[in-house]
Amino acid sequence: MPYRAPISDYEFLFRHAVNFDKIAATEKFSEASDDVVSAILTEAGKLCEEVMAPLQRPGDLEPARLENGVLRTSTGYADGWKAIAEGGWVGMSGDPEYGGMGLPMTLTTAVNEMMSAACLSLQLAPLMTQGQIEALEHHASDELKALYLPKMMAGEWSGTMNLTEPQAGSDVGALTSKAEANGDGTFSVTGQKIFISWGDNDFAENVCHLVLARLPDGVPGTKGISLFLVPKLLPDENGNPGVANDLKVVSVEHKMGLHGSPTCVMQFDGAKGWLVGKEHGGMAAMFTMMNNARLGVGGQGVGAAEGAYQHALAYALERKQGKTPSGTIVDHADVRRMLMSMRADTLAARAIMLANAAAIDMANATGDADWMSRAALLTPIGKVFGTETGMRVSETGVQVHGGMGFIEESGAAQYYRDVRVTAIYEGTNGIQAMDLVARKMMDGGEAASRLLDEIEDHAEQARATMPELAGPVWEATESLRETTEWMVAQSDMNNRFAGALPYLHAFARVLGAHYHLKSALAEPGGPRFKLARYYINALLPEYAGLLVQAQNGADDVFGLSAEEFVS
Amino acid sequence: MPYRAPISDYEFLFRHAVNFDKIAATEKFSEASDDVVSAILTEAGKLCEEVMAPLQRPGDLEPARLENGVLRTSTGYADGWKAIAEGGWVGMSGDPEYGGMGLPMTLTTAVNEMMSAACLSLQLAPLMTQGQIEALEHHASDELKALYLPKMMAGEWSGTMNLTEPQAGSDVGALTSKAEANGDGTFSVTGQKIFISWGDNDFAENVCHLVLARLPDGVPGTKGISLFLVPKLLPDENGNPGVANDLKVVSVEHKMGLHGSPTCVMQFDGAKGWLVGKEHGGMAAMFTMMNNARLGVGGQGVGAAEGAYQHALAYALERKQGKTPSGTIVDHADVRRMLMSMRADTLAARAIMLANAAAIDMANATGDADWMSRAALLTPIGKVFGTETGMRVSETGVQVHGGMGFIEESGAAQYYRDVRVTAIYEGTNGIQAMDLVARKMMDGGEAASRLLDEIEDHAEQARATMPELAGPVWEATESLRETTEWMVAQSDMNNRFAGALPYLHAFARVLGAHYHLKSALAEPGGPRFKLARYYINALLPEYAGLLVQAQNGADDVFGLSAEEFVS
Repeated sequence: MPYRAPISDYEFLFRHAVNFDKIAATEKFSEASDDVVSAILTEAGKLCEEVMAPLQRPGDLEPARLENGVLRTSTGYADGWKAIAEGGWVGMSGDPEYGGMGLPMTLTTAVNEMMSAACLSLQLAPLMTQGQIEALEHHASDELKALYLPKMMAGEWSGTMNLTEPQAGSDVGALTSKAEANGDGTFSVTGQKIFISWGDNDFAENVCHLVLARLPDGVPGTKGISLFLVPKLLPDENGNPGVANDLKVVSVEHKMGLHGSPTCVMQFDGAKGWLVGKEHGGMAAMFTMMNNARLGVGGQGVGAAEGAYQHALAYALERKQGKTPSGTIVDHADVRRMLMSMRADTLAARAIMLANAAAIDMANATGDADWMSRAALLTPIGKVFGTETGMRVSETGVQVHGGMGFIEESGAAQYYRDVRVTAIYEGTNGIQAMDLVARKMMDGGEAASRLLDEIEDHAEQARATMPELAGPVWEATESLRETTEWMVAQSDMNNRFAGALPYLHAFARVLGAHYHLKSALAEPGGPRFKLARYYINALLPEYAGLLVQAQNGADDVFGLSAEEFVS
Repeated sequence: MPYRAPISDYEFLFRHAVNFDKIAATEKFSEASDDVVSAILTEAGKLCEEVMAPLQRPGDLEPARLENGVLRTSTGYADGWKAIAEGGWVGMSGDPEYGGMGLPMTLTTAVNEMMSAACLSLQLAPLMTQGQIEALEHHASDELKALYLPKMMAGEWSGTMNLTEPQAGSDVGALTSKAEANGDGTFSVTGQKIFISWGDNDFAENVCHLVLARLPDGVPGTKGISLFLVPKLLPDENGNPGVANDLKVVSVEHKMGLHGSPTCVMQFDGAKGWLVGKEHGGMAAMFTMMNNARLGVGGQGVGAAEGAYQHALAYALERKQGKTPSGTIVDHADVRRMLMSMRADTLAARAIMLANAAAIDMANATGDADWMSRAALLTPIGKVFGTETGMRVSETGVQVHGGMGFIEESGAAQYYRDVRVTAIYEGTNGIQAMDLVARKMMDGGEAASRLLDEIEDHAEQARATMPELAGPVWEATESLRETTEWMVAQSDMNNRFAGALPYLHAFARVLGAHYHLKSALAEPGGPRFKLARYYINALLPEYAGLLVQAQNGADDVFGLSAEEFVS
């Protein structure tokens, strides 16, 4: 059951959902013509179908491991990385001055999603490297950029992100790693970091770690944290990998899924590093990387959903059972319901991710503050809905397989196990929801309101031709607006936080309906119209219950004392 | 983080939710006094806490395996089984004439749930044996009963259920296993069966297989199927295990979870068997076992939910992170929301399972047709909601753990992986939902309507003291009634089937609210009142969206042709 890159979906959504033509009309992205986009998607699709998809199972069966201190990756992963690197996919949105292709994030998001569908474990390696590229582009000195960026964009060197410590997870400010100036412009970094994705590998010439640590005069909390670039091998005078730095992989975690991706405990023992950004300004630099990664992780969820959907569909079309017209289970109403839900939610999540990326592109191309706030608003929504869709669709994918779904050989279970972490890393989904109702609403809900205006205006226009679909979208949006106003009015932040996740889910449901409506208008009576009709009739109505929960406030969730939770 | 048996929950629900006093007032169950119930729960709780819970991780890390044709179970499982057997827990609802304790299924359901929470993999062994005991009690000859039942109730022999074949899963009628009369009253059974839970073990003296097969004159489909008891070792003239029968375990599946439970491919090569029930009447006999197993599997879901909840709660109470009053994550509103949802849903699912068991007990004790139809109605709802609650709560349990949740050492992932199969086996949740809207509504919705009347009457009475909780319950029930009437009115069964699962979920939501309301009334202002308030305010409202989806009909889900699913 091979993976097929859903290229027509991307091209359709570029055109009809996220106005890619506006992006291509900017000077910055003027090279992203339809032809270029089409060629890029086709080429990336080939890579995913032919090179990456065959690595999905081997990575699961033969996990990355540490052998006498040397990290060994799964069979075939080195070749997979090489193909990704040589295709230029690591640096596809990188600055052309340093060897990148300078293409829009919208396009990169589509490509990254395809790679995630084909082989999530391996895709995480270029994704982390892309995040580091963006952080260095924005915050590193010209010397660091000149040395590191070309290597990373070419996929010769890979990148990682070192935030978490045992006592400092979601609360990054609690970290204790230290850095001291060496007096020559470099720093000595010491500390232990955990949950470091692709903390090492055996296929890149060098591994570049971005490490958060505290300088001696750094205040406690996030305001005293600085960011350092700490390479595995110290570049020699020619910029080639030289002697080993004072750091090592202590161990590799035994995880529920994503076995092909080594999750490392890293030890830095006075490792030499270079400051990125300002002293004590590490969080700002790290946020660049984290926002990039959040977009990427949402896309991982959508990719896993697509992979799980295709896998389940192939099974349903082949599995003979019961007396149906085709003789296969695809004719059962409940199997149809599952497949329709999988496909409709995947399309909705995909459109939201692409809209998120498109807002980033427009912000970067125009500097427009409205696009920046749109991108900021969509980031937590896309991360959560993308990853929840990955979980839900892969769960349903297992169900479509019946008993075979629980047997590892079928491959359905791997999607389910692998994608589970996406709801956790790069800021748990709960943290994302808090970000949405707090930081992203410090504008009094203006950015949200502007988006809701657009959705309602669009629904108003659509009413003329598709009233039965446009009506429910308008009404759901109006309800969402009321809850948004309620959220903004809460000065007790716990009232917002207690309903943050259901609120975010409702927001995503409505956004998904908006893109489905656009999709339906572009293809009246066609398959995408029918998919949109199912989404709006059957899945959108979930918003109502979610909004009730969103507005329920903190009293109920804090009703029990900690002791009363123990029955 | 040890498991603690939630005995006070069971005692509370027995008293206030499912009217256990009515059961104890029947002649059949007159021995089930409060004291006996309390002693049984305490003793079972001890077994679960001290013997079974320590076997949870070892079973995962060291799966059951086949070595040179011999099935080896995980370390400690043999002792675990022995403790279960010697405690009399296998036969606790069995007929006292054959050595059982004759206790109500309500009590057995509570005990089985505790065992599931402590160690799901091992618990499946006595659960399968209990199902066989019930099937033999109802359908086997006196000779078979006298020989087999005492051994099984004492846990000396174990039992399995052999339905599925590679081409016959949900469509049992497609099976091809054959049986031929030997002329001496016995039969020769030949065929291959797959997905046989606990198909063999190394701790019981004998393993008794109930096997569905077709006699030479059996018509195609389910009406030509007969049931045979096929022991691993043929009993000698004294009833002791003698020579090996012609059957074997071909292989053990490699599964996503439940590693301690061997899922076997079984080969029967003219194995000697004895007819159970009438010729060609195998499905009727098997249904006895399946209905028992469905109740049991729903309880497995609730047990896994309880285990995952306790595990996550312990973590949340200990994990220091962020600036909160206690310094731990339990004070974060989103963590509270997760814990409240886990606990509230687990209580709702537990009450539904106990109500299902109570209806079975009342039906058995009184022969009353209304109790029989109540039990039949609740069985698919309990199976689905119990197992979905297991999935959802264990998913949330992983989330509460943050990054640690994805690391196997934390134990959170195991609950998530193990419980996944419960939504699949013993009739997939989709099959259960079809059963609810088809077979269980052949009475024109009368049984459902009677239950909804009771819920509304109760809400009416509760309105006097708790209007803010009773009102929403009444309204939700009324909406559910309307959709129920819509369901019954659909002559095109695909209209029912397309919305069957969301309908079932909505039904469970309302039922859960009913038991929470009872619970609140029994403890006004107390912890259970607060839990009920959260459930009714925050979780119950989900029903509205589900009912819209339930009534959406088949046109949308069949909107796409099979080809159009392939994008």
